[in-house]
Amino acid sequence: MDFSSKLLENAVNEMSQLPGIGKRTALRLVLHLLKQPKEQTHKLSLSLQNMRDEVNFCENCHNISDTKLCEICANPNRLSHIVCVVEDIRDVMAIENTSQYRGHYHVLGGKISPMDGVGPSELNITTLVEKVKSGVVEEIIFALSSTMEGDTTNFYIFKQIEAYKVVTTTIARGISVGDELEYADEVTLGRSILNRIPFENSLKSS
Amino acid sequence: MDFSSKLLENAVNEMSQLPGIGKRTALRLVLHLLKQPKEQTHKLSLSLQNMRDEVNFCENCHNISDTKLCEICANPNRLSHIVCVVEDIRDVMAIENTSQYRGHYHVLGGKISPMDGVGPSELNITTLVEKVKSGVVEEIIFALSSTMEGDTTNFYIFKQIEAYKVVTTTIARGISVGDELEYADEVTLGRSILNRIPFENSLKSS
Repeated sequence: MDFSSKLLENAVNEMSQLPGIGKRTALRLVLHLLKQPKEQTHKLSLSLQNMRDEVNFCENCHNISDTKLCEICANPNRLSHIVCVVEDIRDVMAIENTSQYRGHYHVLGGKISPMDGVGPSELNITTLVEKVKSGVVEEIIFALSSTMEGDTTNFYIFKQIEAYKVVTTTIARGISVGDELEYADEVTLGRSILNRIPFENSLKSS
Repeated sequence: MDFSSKLLENAVNEMSQLPGIGKRTALRLVLHLLKQPKEQTHKLSLSLQNMRDEVNFCENCHNISDTKLCEICANPNRLSHIVCVVEDIRDVMAIENTSQYRGHYHVLGGKISPMDGVGPSELNITTLVEKVKSGVVEEIIFALSSTMEGDTTNFYIFKQIEAYKVVTTTIARGISVGDELEYADEVTLGRSILNRIPFENSLKSS
């Protein structure tokens, strides 16, 4: 693209570094900002910069937090002996939205993926193993996505904590509530039959 | 969405003000920035702010420019007596990419659209009419999109300059080069038959 302005070109180039934002979309977004009051751009760029410079990660679970301990870890009503292992903060938000979980989290920050250059040392695994070693954890719930990378990560962590006295579970895979069986994929349907639960259990719902 | 950090929430909220960016996408983009070096966020926010604060519009054609006159208007080899009227700077870039046009532009900054609260006074129409009045313009080429708003805008401008001695043209509508007739919409195909051109003319191409 041939820009008539260096300033515009810079802004478009930086914007298009974001994932899923191509040059055309970046140009559309930047031109939108030009039509809005200057204040909007100021607020946007200030909020991004503040966030990047000042954001903290919870010492205990690596969740994003403005304080040393995140709200969940700091809450005495949450059960610290149950730890749900997730990939990133969006999973924490998703599980919190269900209001069905009262334990703690442990945010890995990704999945083991040699293809993308992500090994175990890039993830928050050591602190999780330490937590298990210290004896405060009774149950580890694996809640990574069920992809090859997710399974690898689960298994890697499992091997590290196997020797310690801790229950390991994984979230149930099955047919989504409301979905029709005939459209479900075979793997999911197969697992949901293998892992069937007592009927009475399905009656206690949220 | 329930954020564990105010800083994160602010950044996501500001980001999701952009057109076509919802809260989920905004969160994805912001989390991506968190995984990148701080410098990337700094460069992004600085480039946006610089652009918004310092960008200029060409005095003559309202194109975005870092100088008082844009490169096109300042270029003595461009024909100043032919003016192509476009909606925004992206149209200038698109036409420039064809290398087929040697005249000047006039960027309106939008189309007349009462539904969106855009009237003639919000657009750069007065300066165009002044330009025509001053007698330097011999031909006005309308190159707005052929929507109701585009047609309204064309007609509004046409009425304003009708009294002056100036040729008004509009870019050709027709079947895209390489397209198959059977898939073309009827209006376009109809126009391309009505506005057929001498066969020899089609031989001189870029």
